[in-house]
This record gives sequence, structure tokens and C-alpha cells, in this order.
Amino acid sequence: MDTKIKILTAARLLFNDLGFSNVTIRMIASELQMSSGNLNYHFKTRDDILEALYFEMVQEFDKRVEQLGIQEISFQSIKRDMHLSMKRMVDYRFFWTDLYNLLRLNQSIKAHFEAVYLKRFEGYEFLMRYLTDKGLLREFEFSTERKFLIERMIGFSNTWLYNSSIYEIEINDKYLDHQTGNLLAMLYPYLTNLGKLEFKKVRSDYFY
Amino acid sequence: MDTKIKILTAARLLFNDLGFSNVTIRMIASELQMSSGNLNYHFKTRDDILEALYFEMVQEFDKRVEQLGIQEISFQSIKRDMHLSMKRMVDYRFFWTDLYNLLRLNQSIKAHFEAVYLKRFEGYEFLMRYLTDKGLLREFEFSTERKFLIERMIGFSNTWLYNSSIYEIEINDKYLDHQTGNLLAMLYPYLTNLGKLEFKKVRSDYFY
Repeated sequence: MDTKIKILTAARLLFNDLGFSNVTIRMIASELQMSSGNLNYHFKTRDDILEALYFEMVQEFDKRVEQLGIQEISFQSIKRDMHLSMKRMVDYRFFWTDLYNLLRLNQSIKAHFEAVYLKRFEGYEFLMRYLTDKGLLREFEFSTERKFLIERMIGFSNTWLYNSSIYEIEINDKYLDHQTGNLLAMLYPYLTNLGKLEFKKVRSDYFY
Repeated sequence: MDTKIKILTAARLLFNDLGFSNVTIRMIASELQMSSGNLNYHFKTRDDILEALYFEMVQEFDKRVEQLGIQEISFQSIKRDMHLSMKRMVDYRFFWTDLYNLLRLNQSIKAHFEAVYLKRFEGYEFLMRYLTDKGLLREFEFSTERKFLIERMIGFSNTWLYNSSIYEIEINDKYLDHQTGNLLAMLYPYLTNLGKLEFKKVRSDYFY
């Protein structure tokens, strides 16, 4: 394995366990039985590691947003996408439990995070138009209804892991399935009868 | 004004401006043109101030949860309660933007915060049963639907301020009205036709 990748993996696991601010370059180097000097050759500061990890994480999110127009959409594919994103967030959870502070440490991360909000918003707009065109989603009933729903879905995505960590809930597969289910269920009351039938196929476990 | 209250107010404003971890006892004392020794007579540590501020804040929340069974409920009263709670959160916003870290600093705060989750959940259950009995809320359509909705409403309440601060959104009256509107709108798609009519009276600005 490439040394840079080894460093990033070790750093990520330490950040997840102890929190970003409690991990030093020395601790990461020690974990890899590497000298701090050798590590510094690859990453000058802890902040550089943070930045590399952030862009490693979002690479996958960015790809998925870009492919939105190309791929076939179904509740099955939406559910899979949500699950993949949440799983990835758990892999980089140090970031999501300390978002407010970490965004203040690094301008590149902050700039990307803010810019991507608009893309995510547009992605949801595209998705909802698509579902409405297919007769699965009802028309929105008041002027801000769609905007509110999208804001809530992005807000939920940004904070479900933070909100769970507040209560020290253990993040296992079952919990991940629960949270994916809740994010997907945000769409449910806006679905048409046809949409509800399709939803039931994907989450049949809710209808016993 | 009582010295203790003066200290709490000055500390709260400094915490809001600079973040809890960046404010020292000395800074609070200096703000009040008071010696650190005098301040220490009232509060031994910064952590004691944090604890006092937390319980000062939640006193109002606790009172409102307790009165749920006594008072008349309408969308107007729900909206007012949401607005008051959010306004109070803004007054103590240092807490909500650093919740994950601050809960780890103080066991009394953590214990209260976790215990109150159940009370808030039961409060929402009571509210929804009430609205259903009045014919304003539809029956829930699948086994976890109500649970999901309540989890989202509590999650939204815990994180709307955090989520706004991530994007450095200015928290003014207009924005507060927007967020209150969104929290209330979470109920909208679950309302009966009668419920929707009542909702429209309270948020007529959405239906132009």
C-alpha cells in the first residue's frame, strides 16, 4: 500500500476514536511505526491530512451527484445511494461530529462544503421533478413546501450522525438501516398512491 | 441586578461570541470590571458557569413540557411554543453549536439532556394523539411512521441552529420565522383536510 494512503487510513481511524483535536502527528506516526520526520515528508501539518481526508470522502459524494442525470432512478436506487452515503459518513465520522469546528480550520474544505450545498439542493430538485413526472410524487401544495422538504433532507443528512453521537448511540448496521429508512420516509407522505405502492416494495418491513 | 445573574449574562454573551472553549474566567471578570477572585466566590470554575447556564436555559423548556396536558392546543399555540424555544436557543447558541463537546464536559448536563429526550418524545406522542383525536392529523400508515416523524422533529430541534451555523447563516427574526415554519411544516403532509385548513390560517403567508 502507498505510504500516503497508509497515513490517511491510520489518521482517519485515530481521529474517529479520539477526535481530531486530540490526535497529534506524532501519534499517527507512532501508530505506523514511522518517524514524525518521515510522516512530515508526506504531510506537512495535521491540517493537510484533514484536507486530504475530506476530499477523499467527498470524491464519492461528488461522483454520485454528477451521475444523477444519467442513471435510472427508483426508490431502490435512492435507498442504495442514501445507504452508501451514510456508510461513508460513518467511515469519516470524526468529521461529522465536529463539523462546526473543522470547517473553521480549513478554507478549502469550507469553500467546497458551502458550494456543494447548492449542488445537493439542485440534485434533490431534479429527483423530485423526476418522481413527479413518473407519477410517484404529488404536486407540492404551498409555495415553500418543496424548499422546506429539501432543506430538511440536507439538514438530516448533515446532522443524523452528530445527533446520534450526542446520545452516544452505537452506530451499527441495524442503526444505519434505521436512519436510511427515516431519510427515505421523509418522502413518504408526499407520495401519490402509486408512489406509496412502490415505496412499500422497497421497505416492506414497515408494513406488517 | 444580582451579581450571579450579572456573571451568567456576561458569560453567556462571551460564549456566544467566541465559543465556550475560547473564554476564560479572567475574560468574564474583566468584562464586568470585577476581580477574578470575586467571580470565583460565586462560581469556582468555568464548568460551574456552563452548568448554571444550561439549567437556566432548560428551565423554560421543562416548564413547557410539563404544561402540555393542561393548556389548550392549536396550531397557533404549537407555533408559538416552537418560536419561543428557538428564540431561547439563539440566546444560548454557544451551547447548540458545540453540543457534542459540551455534553462530554459535564455529567449533570449530559444526564439531564439524555433524560429529557424521553420526555420530549412523550410530549410529541401526546400532541399527535391530541391532533388525531381532534380530526386534524391522519392516522399513521405504517408501523414506524410516527416514531420516525418524532425522531426527525427532535433531531431538527437539536440541530437547526448547528446546521445554520455550519453555513454561517445570519440568525435574525426572518430566519427564525423560516425555521419555525419548517418545523411546523413537518406536520403538514400528515394532516387531514380539516387539519390543512387550520394550518393555512396560521401560515397563510405560504398560500398565496
